[in-house]
Amino acid sequence: MTDTNGPLIIIGGHEDKEGDRAILAEVARRVAGGRLVIATVASRKPEGYFDAYREAMAPLGVTDLVELYLDSRDDAFDPAQGVLIEGATGVFFSGGDQQRIADMIRGTPVEQQLRRLRARGGVIAGTSAGASMMGTTMMVGGASEQSHRIGDLRMTEGLGLIQGVIIDQHFAERGRIGRLLGAVAAHPEAIGIGIDEDTAIVVEDGGFSVIGDGAVTIVDASGASLPDRGASGTLSIRDVRLHLLSEGNVFDLAGRIVDPRAAAA
Amino acid sequence: MTDTNGPLIIIGGHEDKEGDRAILAEVARRVAGGRLVIATVASRKPEGYFDAYREAMAPLGVTDLVELYLDSRDDAFDPAQGVLIEGATGVFFSGGDQQRIADMIRGTPVEQQLRRLRARGGVIAGTSAGASMMGTTMMVGGASEQSHRIGDLRMTEGLGLIQGVIIDQHFAERGRIGRLLGAVAAHPEAIGIGIDEDTAIVVEDGGFSVIGDGAVTIVDASGASLPDRGASGTLSIRDVRLHLLSEGNVFDLAGRIVDPRAAAA
Repeated sequence: MTDTNGPLIIIGGHEDKEGDRAILAEVARRVAGGRLVIATVASRKPEGYFDAYREAMAPLGVTDLVELYLDSRDDAFDPAQGVLIEGATGVFFSGGDQQRIADMIRGTPVEQQLRRLRARGGVIAGTSAGASMMGTTMMVGGASEQSHRIGDLRMTEGLGLIQGVIIDQHFAERGRIGRLLGAVAAHPEAIGIGIDEDTAIVVEDGGFSVIGDGAVTIVDASGASLPDRGASGTLSIRDVRLHLLSEGNVFDLAGRIVDPRAAAA
Repeated sequence: MTDTNGPLIIIGGHEDKEGDRAILAEVARRVAGGRLVIATVASRKPEGYFDAYREAMAPLGVTDLVELYLDSRDDAFDPAQGVLIEGATGVFFSGGDQQRIADMIRGTPVEQQLRRLRARGGVIAGTSAGASMMGTTMMVGGASEQSHRIGDLRMTEGLGLIQGVIIDQHFAERGRIGRLLGAVAAHPEAIGIGIDEDTAIVVEDGGFSVIGDGAVTIVDASGASLPDRGASGTLSIRDVRLHLLSEGNVFDLAGRIVDPRAAAA
Protein backbone atom coordinates (compact mmCIF):
# COMPACT_ATOMS: atom_id res chain seq x y z
CA MET A 1 0.00 0.00 0.00
CA THR A 2 2.96 2.30 0.56
CA ASP A 3 6.34 2.28 -1.06
CA THR A 4 8.98 0.44 0.93
CA ASN A 5 11.27 3.41 0.79
CA GLY A 6 12.07 6.45 2.89
CA PRO A 7 9.39 7.73 5.27
CA LEU A 8 6.69 10.27 4.67
CA ILE A 9 5.83 12.78 7.39
CA ILE A 10 2.34 14.08 6.68
CA ILE A 11 1.37 17.07 8.82
CA GLY A 12 -2.07 18.59 9.40
CA GLY A 13 -0.83 22.20 9.20
CA HIS A 14 0.27 24.75 11.81
CA GLU A 15 3.02 22.56 13.23
CA ASP A 16 4.67 24.24 16.19
CA LYS A 17 7.69 26.30 15.10
CA GLU A 18 8.57 28.08 18.35
CA GLY A 19 7.96 25.71 21.27
CA ASP A 20 9.06 22.08 21.57
CA ARG A 21 8.68 21.66 17.78
CA ALA A 22 7.96 17.96 18.20
CA ILE A 23 7.04 17.42 14.56
CA LEU A 24 9.87 19.46 13.06
CA ALA A 25 12.23 17.61 15.42
CA GLU A 26 11.05 14.35 13.86
CA VAL A 27 11.76 15.81 10.41
CA ALA A 28 15.22 16.88 11.62
CA ARG A 29 15.90 13.41 13.01
CA ARG A 30 15.05 11.84 9.65
CA VAL A 31 17.08 14.38 7.69
CA ALA A 32 19.99 13.13 9.81
CA GLY A 33 22.42 15.96 9.30
CA GLY A 34 21.87 16.16 5.55
CA ARG A 35 20.37 18.83 3.35
CA LEU A 36 16.68 19.72 3.61
CA VAL A 37 14.90 21.20 0.61
CA ILE A 38 12.02 23.50 1.58
CA ALA A 39 9.58 23.26 -1.32
CA THR A 40 7.35 26.34 -1.29
CA VAL A 41 5.68 25.35 -4.55
CA ALA A 42 2.17 25.30 -3.07
CA SER A 43 2.06 29.05 -2.76
CA ARG A 44 1.81 31.76 -5.39
CA LYS A 45 3.44 34.12 -2.90
CA PRO A 46 6.14 32.01 -1.26
CA GLU A 47 7.92 34.93 0.42
CA GLY A 48 8.59 34.29 4.08
CA TYR A 49 8.01 30.53 4.16
CA PHE A 50 11.64 29.60 3.63
CA ASP A 51 12.92 32.01 6.27
CA ALA A 52 10.35 30.77 8.78
CA TYR A 53 11.51 27.17 8.35
CA ARG A 54 15.17 28.16 8.37
CA GLU A 55 14.68 29.82 11.75
CA ALA A 56 12.62 26.96 13.11
CA MET A 57 14.98 24.20 11.94
CA ALA A 58 18.32 25.75 12.94
CA PRO A 59 18.02 24.95 16.68
CA LEU A 60 17.12 21.39 15.66
CA GLY A 61 20.50 21.03 13.94
CA VAL A 62 19.29 21.32 10.35
CA THR A 63 21.34 24.14 8.89
CA ASP A 64 21.80 23.07 5.26
CA LEU A 65 18.50 24.31 3.83
CA VAL A 66 17.71 25.26 0.24
CA GLU A 67 14.47 26.49 -1.28
CA LEU A 68 12.71 24.87 -4.21
CA TYR A 69 10.25 27.20 -5.90
CA LEU A 70 8.70 26.87 -9.32
CA ASP A 71 7.27 29.93 -11.05
CA SER A 72 5.77 27.72 -13.72
CA ARG A 73 5.63 24.09 -14.75
CA ASP A 74 8.47 24.76 -17.21
CA ASP A 75 10.76 25.41 -14.25
CA ALA A 76 10.28 21.79 -13.19
CA PHE A 77 12.13 20.76 -16.35
CA ASP A 78 15.11 22.99 -15.51
CA PRO A 79 18.01 20.67 -14.53
CA ALA A 80 19.09 23.16 -11.85
CA GLN A 81 15.96 22.36 -9.86
CA GLY A 82 16.57 18.63 -9.96
CA VAL A 83 20.08 19.15 -8.63
CA LEU A 84 18.60 20.68 -5.48
CA ILE A 85 16.89 17.43 -4.58
CA GLU A 86 19.77 15.20 -5.71
CA GLY A 87 21.96 16.52 -2.93
CA ALA A 88 19.32 16.34 -0.21
CA THR A 89 18.22 13.80 2.40
CA GLY A 90 14.77 15.37 2.77
CA VAL A 91 12.17 17.60 1.13
CA PHE A 92 9.56 19.55 3.09
CA PHE A 93 6.49 20.91 1.30
CA SER A 94 4.99 23.99 2.92
CA GLY A 95 1.31 24.99 2.71
CA GLY A 96 -0.79 26.78 0.13
CA ASP A 97 -2.76 25.15 -2.65
CA GLN A 98 -2.38 21.40 -3.24
CA GLN A 99 -3.56 21.82 -6.82
CA ARG A 100 -0.60 24.10 -7.53
CA ILE A 101 1.85 21.44 -6.28
CA ALA A 102 0.29 18.80 -8.52
CA ASP A 103 0.09 21.12 -11.53
CA MET A 104 3.76 22.12 -11.23
CA ILE A 105 5.29 18.74 -10.41
CA ARG A 106 3.25 15.78 -11.70
CA GLY A 107 4.98 14.13 -14.64
CA THR A 108 8.09 16.32 -14.47
CA PRO A 109 11.73 15.58 -13.62
CA VAL A 110 11.14 17.07 -10.16
CA GLU A 111 8.63 14.30 -9.46
CA GLN A 112 11.21 11.73 -10.58
CA GLN A 113 13.77 13.32 -8.26
CA LEU A 114 11.33 13.01 -5.36
CA ARG A 115 10.84 9.31 -6.06
CA ARG A 116 14.58 8.78 -6.30
CA LEU A 117 15.09 10.60 -3.00
CA ARG A 118 12.66 8.21 -1.32
CA ALA A 119 14.23 5.17 -3.00
CA ARG A 120 17.53 6.02 -1.37
CA GLY A 121 15.84 6.40 2.03
CA GLY A 122 15.21 10.15 2.06
CA VAL A 123 12.25 11.67 3.84
CA ILE A 124 9.42 13.62 2.20
CA ALA A 125 7.41 15.79 4.57
CA GLY A 126 4.48 18.07 3.84
CA THR A 127 2.15 20.26 5.83
CA SER A 128 -1.39 21.38 4.97
CA ALA A 129 -1.53 21.51 1.13
CA GLY A 130 1.80 19.67 1.26
CA ALA A 131 -0.02 16.90 3.14
CA SER A 132 -3.07 16.66 0.88
CA MET A 133 -1.01 16.24 -2.28
CA MET A 134 0.69 13.07 -0.97
CA GLY A 135 -2.18 10.77 -1.92
CA THR A 136 -3.09 9.29 -5.29
CA THR A 137 -6.43 11.04 -5.03
CA MET A 138 -6.69 14.40 -3.32
CA MET A 139 -9.46 16.78 -2.39
CA VAL A 140 -9.49 20.28 -3.77
CA GLY A 141 -12.24 22.54 -2.53
CA GLY A 142 -15.02 21.01 -0.47
CA ALA A 143 -16.78 22.90 2.27
CA SER A 144 -15.73 23.02 5.91
CA GLU A 145 -18.16 23.11 8.82
CA GLN A 146 -21.07 21.55 7.05
CA SER A 147 -22.32 18.09 6.33
CA HIS A 148 -21.47 16.88 2.86
CA ARG A 149 -23.78 17.59 -0.03
CA ILE A 150 -23.33 15.18 -2.87
CA GLY A 151 -21.55 16.90 -5.73
CA ASP A 152 -19.85 19.52 -3.56
CA LEU A 153 -16.38 18.00 -3.61
CA ARG A 154 -13.79 17.95 -6.37
CA MET A 155 -11.22 15.15 -6.35
CA THR A 156 -8.15 15.16 -8.55
CA GLU A 157 -4.83 13.33 -8.79
CA GLY A 158 -2.16 14.01 -6.21
CA LEU A 159 1.49 12.96 -6.41
CA GLY A 160 0.67 9.40 -5.31
CA LEU A 161 3.51 9.07 -2.80
CA ILE A 162 1.08 7.03 -0.69
CA GLN A 163 -1.61 4.87 -2.24
CA GLY A 164 -5.08 3.94 -1.07
CA VAL A 165 -5.69 6.92 1.18
CA ILE A 166 -7.34 10.32 0.99
CA ILE A 167 -5.75 12.88 3.28
CA ASP A 168 -7.36 15.95 4.82
CA GLN A 169 -5.72 18.53 7.09
CA HIS A 170 -6.59 21.26 9.61
CA PHE A 171 -9.10 18.55 10.35
CA ALA A 172 -10.81 19.17 13.68
CA GLU A 173 -9.99 22.87 13.62
CA ARG A 174 -11.91 23.46 10.39
CA GLY A 175 -14.69 20.93 10.99
CA ARG A 176 -13.84 18.75 7.98
CA ILE A 177 -15.34 15.38 8.90
CA GLY A 178 -18.23 16.12 6.53
CA ARG A 179 -16.08 16.47 3.45
CA LEU A 180 -13.86 13.51 4.33
CA LEU A 181 -16.98 11.33 4.66
CA GLY A 182 -18.06 12.67 1.29
CA ALA A 183 -14.69 11.68 -0.17
CA VAL A 184 -14.69 8.11 1.17
CA ALA A 185 -18.37 7.67 0.29
CA ALA A 186 -17.34 8.31 -3.31
CA HIS A 187 -14.11 6.26 -2.98
CA PRO A 188 -14.87 3.52 -0.43
CA GLU A 189 -11.72 1.63 -1.40
CA ALA A 190 -9.63 4.49 0.06
CA ILE A 191 -9.03 5.09 3.74
CA GLY A 192 -9.86 8.64 4.81
CA ILE A 193 -7.22 10.19 7.06
CA GLY A 194 -8.00 13.53 8.73
CA ILE A 195 -5.00 15.11 10.45
CA ASP A 196 -5.36 17.87 13.06
CA GLU A 197 -3.09 20.90 13.25
CA ASP A 198 0.28 20.37 14.96
CA THR A 199 -0.20 16.64 14.43
CA ALA A 200 1.41 14.29 11.91
CA ILE A 201 1.59 10.73 10.71
CA VAL A 202 4.95 9.14 10.02
CA VAL A 203 4.43 6.61 7.22
CA GLU A 204 6.84 3.70 6.82
CA ASP A 205 6.80 -0.10 6.55
CA GLY A 206 3.17 -0.23 5.40
CA GLY A 207 1.77 1.69 8.33
CA PHE A 208 2.01 4.92 10.22
CA SER A 209 2.46 6.22 13.72
CA VAL A 210 0.95 9.41 15.14
CA ILE A 211 2.98 12.24 16.64
CA GLY A 212 1.98 15.66 17.91
CA ASP A 213 -0.70 17.36 19.89
CA GLY A 214 -4.04 16.56 18.25
CA ALA A 215 -5.77 13.55 16.78
CA VAL A 216 -5.81 11.65 13.52
CA THR A 217 -9.28 10.58 12.45
CA ILE A 218 -9.58 7.47 10.28
CA VAL A 219 -12.80 6.86 8.36
CA ASP A 220 -13.14 3.49 6.68
CA ALA A 221 -16.18 3.11 4.43
CA SER A 222 -15.16 -0.28 3.01
CA GLY A 223 -17.99 -1.96 4.92
CA ALA A 224 -20.45 0.91 4.65
CA SER A 225 -23.75 1.11 2.86
CA LEU A 226 -23.89 2.63 -0.59
CA PRO A 227 -24.08 6.39 -0.14
CA ASP A 228 -27.42 7.95 -0.76
CA ARG A 229 -28.71 11.46 -1.03
CA GLY A 230 -31.71 12.68 0.88
CA ALA A 231 -34.28 15.09 -0.52
CA SER A 232 -31.99 17.92 0.64
CA GLY A 233 -28.98 16.61 -1.33
CA THR A 234 -27.17 15.90 1.93
CA LEU A 235 -25.16 12.68 2.01
CA SER A 236 -26.53 9.66 3.84
CA ILE A 237 -24.25 6.70 4.55
CA ARG A 238 -24.26 4.07 7.27
CA ASP A 239 -21.80 1.75 8.97
CA VAL A 240 -18.65 3.77 8.51
CA ARG A 241 -15.87 2.62 10.82
CA LEU A 242 -14.18 5.45 12.66
CA HIS A 243 -10.96 5.44 14.68
CA LEU A 244 -9.54 8.37 16.57
CA LEU A 245 -5.79 8.07 17.08
CA SER A 246 -3.44 10.17 19.13
CA GLU A 247 0.27 10.29 19.85
CA GLY A 248 1.84 6.86 20.03
CA ASN A 249 -0.92 5.00 18.17
CA VAL A 250 0.09 2.91 15.19
CA PHE A 251 -2.12 2.08 12.20
CA ASP A 252 -1.58 -0.79 9.76
CA LEU A 253 -2.69 0.41 6.34
CA ALA A 254 -3.10 -2.96 4.62
CA GLY A 255 -5.01 -4.52 7.51
CA ARG A 256 -6.89 -1.30 8.28
CA ILE A 257 -6.36 -1.90 11.99
CA VAL A 258 -5.06 0.17 14.86
CA ASP A 259 -2.06 -0.78 16.96
CA PRO A 260 -1.16 -4.21 15.63
CA ARG A 261 2.04 -4.00 17.68
CA ALA A 262 0.11 -3.38 20.89
CA ALA A 263 -2.32 -6.19 20.07
CA ALA A 264 0.54 -8.60 19.41
CA ALA A 265 2.29 -7.69 22.65
CA MET B 1 -35.73 3.40 25.05
CA THR B 2 -38.19 6.26 24.52
CA ASP B 3 -41.51 6.88 26.15
CA THR B 4 -44.48 5.64 24.15
CA ASN B 5 -46.12 9.02 24.32
CA GLY B 6 -46.29 12.17 22.24
CA PRO B 7 -43.43 12.92 19.88
CA LEU B 8 -40.26 14.85 20.51
CA ILE B 9 -38.93 17.18 17.82
CA ILE B 10 -35.25 17.76 18.53
CA ILE B 11 -33.71 20.51 16.42
CA GLY B 12 -30.03 21.34 15.86
CA GLY B 13 -30.53 25.11 16.10
CA HIS B 14 -31.11 27.86 13.50
CA GLU B 15 -34.24 26.27 12.07
CA ASP B 16 -35.53 28.27 9.13
CA LYS B 17 -38.07 30.88 10.24
CA GLU B 18 -38.58 32.83 7.01
CA GLY B 19 -38.46 30.42 4.08
CA ASP B 20 -40.25 27.09 3.74
CA ARG B 21 -39.97 26.57 7.52
CA ALA B 22 -39.99 22.79 7.06
CA ILE B 23 -39.19 22.05 10.69
CA LEU B 24 -41.56 24.58 12.21
CA ALA B 25 -44.24 23.27 9.82
CA GLU B 26 -43.74 19.82 11.36
CA VAL B 27 -44.14 21.36 14.83
CA ALA B 28 -47.32 23.10 13.62
CA ARG B 29 -48.68 19.85 12.20
CA ARG B 30 -48.15 18.10 15.53
CA VAL B 31 -49.65 20.97 17.54
CA ALA B 32 -52.74 20.35 15.40
CA GLY B 33 -54.55 23.60 15.94
CA GLY B 34 -53.98 23.67 19.70
CA ARG B 35 -51.98 25.95 21.92
CA LEU B 36 -48.20 26.08 21.66
CA VAL B 37 -46.15 27.15 24.67
CA ILE B 38 -42.88 28.86 23.73
CA ALA B 39 -40.53 28.10 26.63
CA THR B 40 -37.74 30.68 26.62
CA VAL B 41 -36.32 29.34 29.88
CA ALA B 42 -32.88 28.60 28.39
CA SER B 43 -32.03 32.27 28.11
CA ARG B 44 -31.24 34.84 30.77
CA LYS B 45 -32.37 37.49 28.30
CA PRO B 46 -35.43 35.99 26.64
CA GLU B 47 -36.62 39.22 25.00
CA GLY B 48 -37.39 38.76 21.32
CA TYR B 49 -37.56 34.96 21.22
CA PHE B 50 -41.30 34.77 21.74
CA ASP B 51 -42.09 37.41 19.12
CA ALA B 52 -39.81 35.71 16.59
CA TYR B 53 -41.65 32.41 17.00
CA ARG B 54 -45.06 34.11 16.97
CA GLU B 55 -44.24 35.67 13.62
CA ALA B 56 -42.77 32.45 12.24
CA MET B 57 -45.64 30.21 13.39
CA ALA B 58 -48.59 32.42 12.39
CA PRO B 59 -48.47 31.62 8.65
CA LEU B 60 -48.30 27.93 9.62
CA GLY B 61 -51.68 28.22 11.35
CA VAL B 62 -50.42 28.25 14.94
CA THR B 63 -51.88 31.40 16.44
CA ASP B 64 -52.54 30.41 20.05
CA LEU B 65 -49.07 30.95 21.50
CA VAL B 66 -48.11 31.69 25.09
CA GLU B 67 -44.68 32.24 26.62
CA LEU B 68 -43.29 30.27 29.52
CA TYR B 69 -40.42 32.03 31.23
CA LEU B 70 -38.97 31.38 34.67
CA ASP B 71 -36.99 34.08 36.42
CA SER B 72 -35.94 31.60 39.07
CA ARG B 73 -36.52 27.99 40.05
CA ASP B 74 -39.17 29.18 42.52
CA ASP B 75 -41.29 30.31 39.58
CA ALA B 76 -41.53 26.68 38.48
CA PHE B 77 -43.55 26.00 41.63
CA ASP B 78 -46.04 28.79 40.82
CA PRO B 79 -49.33 27.11 39.82
CA ALA B 80 -49.92 29.78 37.17
CA GLN B 81 -46.97 28.39 35.15
CA GLY B 82 -48.31 24.85 35.22
CA VAL B 83 -51.65 26.08 33.89
CA LEU B 84 -49.91 27.33 30.76
CA ILE B 85 -48.84 23.79 29.82
CA GLU B 86 -52.13 22.20 30.95
CA GLY B 87 -54.01 23.95 28.19
CA ALA B 88 -51.45 23.27 25.45
CA THR B 89 -50.87 20.60 22.82
CA GLY B 90 -47.18 21.44 22.47
CA VAL B 91 -44.21 23.09 24.12
CA PHE B 92 -41.24 24.50 22.18
CA PHE B 93 -37.96 25.21 23.98
CA SER B 94 -35.88 27.95 22.38
CA GLY B 95 -32.08 28.21 22.60
CA GLY B 96 -29.68 29.52 25.21
CA ASP B 97 -28.08 27.48 27.97
CA GLN B 98 -29.19 23.89 28.53
CA GLN B 99 -27.95 24.04 32.10
CA ARG B 100 -30.41 26.85 32.84
CA ILE B 101 -33.33 24.73 31.56
CA ALA B 102 -32.33 21.82 33.77
CA ASP B 103 -31.68 24.01 36.80
CA MET B 104 -35.08 25.73 36.54
CA ILE B 105 -37.23 22.72 35.66
CA ARG B 106 -35.83 19.41 36.92
CA GLY B 107 -37.85 18.10 39.85
CA THR B 108 -40.47 20.86 39.69
CA PRO B 109 -44.20 20.87 38.84
CA VAL B 110 -43.30 22.25 35.39
CA GLU B 111 -41.40 19.04 34.66
CA GLN B 112 -44.43 17.02 35.77
CA GLN B 113 -46.63 19.10 33.46
CA LEU B 114 -44.29 18.36 30.57
CA ARG B 115 -44.54 14.64 31.22
CA ARG B 116 -48.34 14.85 31.46
CA LEU B 117 -48.44 16.76 28.19
CA ARG B 118 -46.56 13.96 26.48
CA ALA B 119 -48.68 11.28 28.14
CA ARG B 120 -51.76 12.78 26.51
CA GLY B 121 -50.01 12.84 23.12
CA GLY B 122 -48.64 16.40 23.12
CA VAL B 123 -45.42 17.33 21.35
CA ILE B 124 -42.28 18.65 23.01
CA ALA B 125 -39.88 20.41 20.66
CA GLY B 126 -36.57 22.05 21.42
CA THR B 127 -33.84 23.76 19.45
CA SER B 128 -30.14 24.16 20.30
CA ALA B 129 -29.99 24.21 24.15
CA GLY B 130 -33.63 23.08 24.01
CA ALA B 131 -32.39 20.01 22.10
CA SER B 132 -29.45 19.16 24.35
CA MET B 133 -31.56 19.10 27.51
CA MET B 134 -33.85 16.35 26.16
CA GLY B 135 -31.49 13.52 27.09
CA THR B 136 -30.90 11.87 30.45
CA THR B 137 -27.26 12.92 30.19
CA MET B 138 -26.35 16.17 28.53
CA MET B 139 -23.15 17.96 27.62
CA VAL B 140 -22.42 21.37 29.03
CA GLY B 141 -19.28 23.06 27.84
CA GLY B 142 -16.88 21.04 25.73
CA ALA B 143 -14.78 22.56 23.01
CA SER B 144 -15.79 22.94 19.38
CA GLU B 145 -13.38 22.60 16.47
CA GLN B 146 -10.84 20.47 18.21
CA SER B 147 -10.30 16.82 18.88
CA HIS B 148 -11.36 15.76 22.34
CA ARG B 149 -8.95 15.96 25.25
CA ILE B 150 -9.87 13.66 28.06
CA GLY B 151 -11.28 15.66 30.95
CA ASP B 152 -12.44 18.59 28.81
CA LEU B 153 -16.14 17.78 28.85
CA ARG B 154 -18.69 18.22 31.60
CA MET B 155 -21.76 15.99 31.56
CA THR B 156 -24.79 16.58 33.76
CA GLU B 157 -28.38 15.43 33.98
CA GLY B 158 -30.87 16.65 31.41
CA LEU B 159 -34.65 16.34 31.59
CA GLY B 160 -34.56 12.72 30.46
CA LEU B 161 -37.39 12.99 27.95
CA ILE B 162 -35.42 10.53 25.82
CA GLN B 163 -33.21 7.86 27.35
CA GLY B 164 -29.99 6.27 26.16
CA VAL B 165 -28.81 9.11 23.94
CA ILE B 166 -26.51 12.12 24.17
CA ILE B 167 -27.56 14.96 21.91
CA ASP B 168 -25.37 17.66 20.40
CA GLN B 169 -26.47 20.54 18.17
CA HIS B 170 -25.07 23.07 15.66
CA PHE B 171 -23.15 19.92 14.90
CA ALA B 172 -21.35 20.24 11.56
CA GLU B 173 -21.42 24.03 11.67
CA ARG B 174 -19.42 24.19 14.90
CA GLY B 175 -17.21 21.17 14.27
CA ARG B 176 -18.46 19.17 17.26
CA ILE B 177 -17.66 15.57 16.30
CA GLY B 178 -14.68 15.71 18.68
CA ARG B 179 -16.72 16.43 21.77
CA LEU B 180 -19.48 13.98 20.85
CA LEU B 181 -16.86 11.24 20.49
CA GLY B 182 -15.54 12.30 23.89
CA ALA B 183 -19.05 11.97 25.33
CA VAL B 184 -19.74 8.49 23.95
CA ALA B 185 -16.23 7.31 24.82
CA ALA B 186 -17.12 8.11 28.44
CA HIS B 187 -20.68 6.74 28.08
CA PRO B 188 -20.48 3.94 25.50
CA GLU B 189 -23.94 2.70 26.48
CA ALA B 190 -25.42 5.92 25.04
CA ILE B 191 -25.88 6.68 21.36
CA GLY B 192 -24.36 10.01 20.32
CA ILE B 193 -26.65 12.07 18.10
CA GLY B 194 -25.22 15.21 16.45
CA ILE B 195 -27.84 17.37 14.75
CA ASP B 196 -26.94 20.02 12.18
CA GLU B 197 -28.57 23.43 12.02
CA ASP B 198 -31.99 23.61 10.31
CA THR B 199 -32.24 19.84 10.80
CA ALA B 200 -34.29 17.83 13.29
CA ILE B 201 -35.17 14.36 14.45
CA VAL B 202 -38.78 13.46 15.14
CA VAL B 203 -38.76 10.86 17.90
CA GLU B 204 -41.71 8.48 18.27
CA ASP B 205 -42.41 4.76 18.50
CA GLY B 206 -38.90 3.89 19.64
CA GLY B 207 -37.13 5.51 16.74
CA PHE B 208 -36.74 8.74 14.89
CA SER B 209 -36.90 10.16 11.40
CA VAL B 210 -34.80 13.00 10.02
CA ILE B 211 -36.23 16.20 8.54
CA GLY B 212 -34.57 19.37 7.31
CA ASP B 213 -31.62 20.53 5.35
CA GLY B 214 -28.50 19.07 6.99
CA ALA B 215 -27.41 15.75 8.41
CA VAL B 216 -27.74 13.85 11.65
CA THR B 217 -24.54 12.09 12.70
CA ILE B 218 -24.87 8.97 14.85
CA VAL B 219 -21.83 7.72 16.75
CA ASP B 220 -22.16 4.33 18.40
CA ALA B 221 -19.26 3.33 20.65
CA SER B 222 -20.93 0.20 22.03
CA GLY B 223 -18.49 -1.98 20.09
CA ALA B 224 -15.52 0.33 20.38
CA SER B 225 -12.24 -0.15 22.19
CA LEU B 226 -11.81 1.28 25.63
CA PRO B 227 -10.88 4.93 25.23
CA ASP B 228 -7.30 5.81 25.87
CA ARG B 229 -5.32 8.99 26.16
CA GLY B 230 -2.13 9.59 24.28
CA ALA B 231 0.84 11.43 25.70
CA SER B 232 -0.84 14.67 24.58
CA GLY B 233 -4.06 13.95 26.54
CA THR B 234 -5.97 13.66 23.26
CA LEU B 235 -8.58 10.90 23.15
CA SER B 236 -7.83 7.70 21.28
CA ILE B 237 -10.65 5.26 20.54
CA ARG B 238 -11.15 2.70 17.81
CA ASP B 239 -14.02 0.92 16.07
CA VAL B 240 -16.70 3.54 16.56
CA ARG B 241 -19.67 2.97 14.24
CA LEU B 242 -20.75 6.11 12.44
CA HIS B 243 -23.91 6.75 10.43
CA LEU B 244 -24.72 9.92 8.57
CA LEU B 245 -28.45 10.38 8.06
CA SER B 246 -30.35 12.92 6.03
CA GLU B 247 -33.95 13.78 5.31
CA GLY B 248 -36.18 10.72 5.09
CA ASN B 249 -33.84 8.34 6.93
CA VAL B 250 -35.25 6.46 9.90
CA PHE B 251 -33.25 5.17 12.87
CA ASP B 252 -34.35 2.44 15.28
CA LEU B 253 -33.02 3.38 18.72
CA ALA B 254 -33.28 -0.03 20.39
CA GLY B 255 -31.71 -1.91 17.48
CA ARG B 256 -29.23 0.90 16.75
CA ILE B 257 -29.87 0.46 13.03
CA VAL B 258 -30.75 2.78 10.19
CA ASP B 259 -33.87 2.43 8.09
CA PRO B 260 -35.40 -0.79 9.37
CA ARG B 261 -38.49 0.07 7.34
CA ALA B 262 -36.48 0.36 4.14
CA ALA B 263 -34.62 -2.88 4.90
CA ALA B 264 -37.89 -4.72 5.52
CA ALA B 265 -39.44 -3.44 2.27
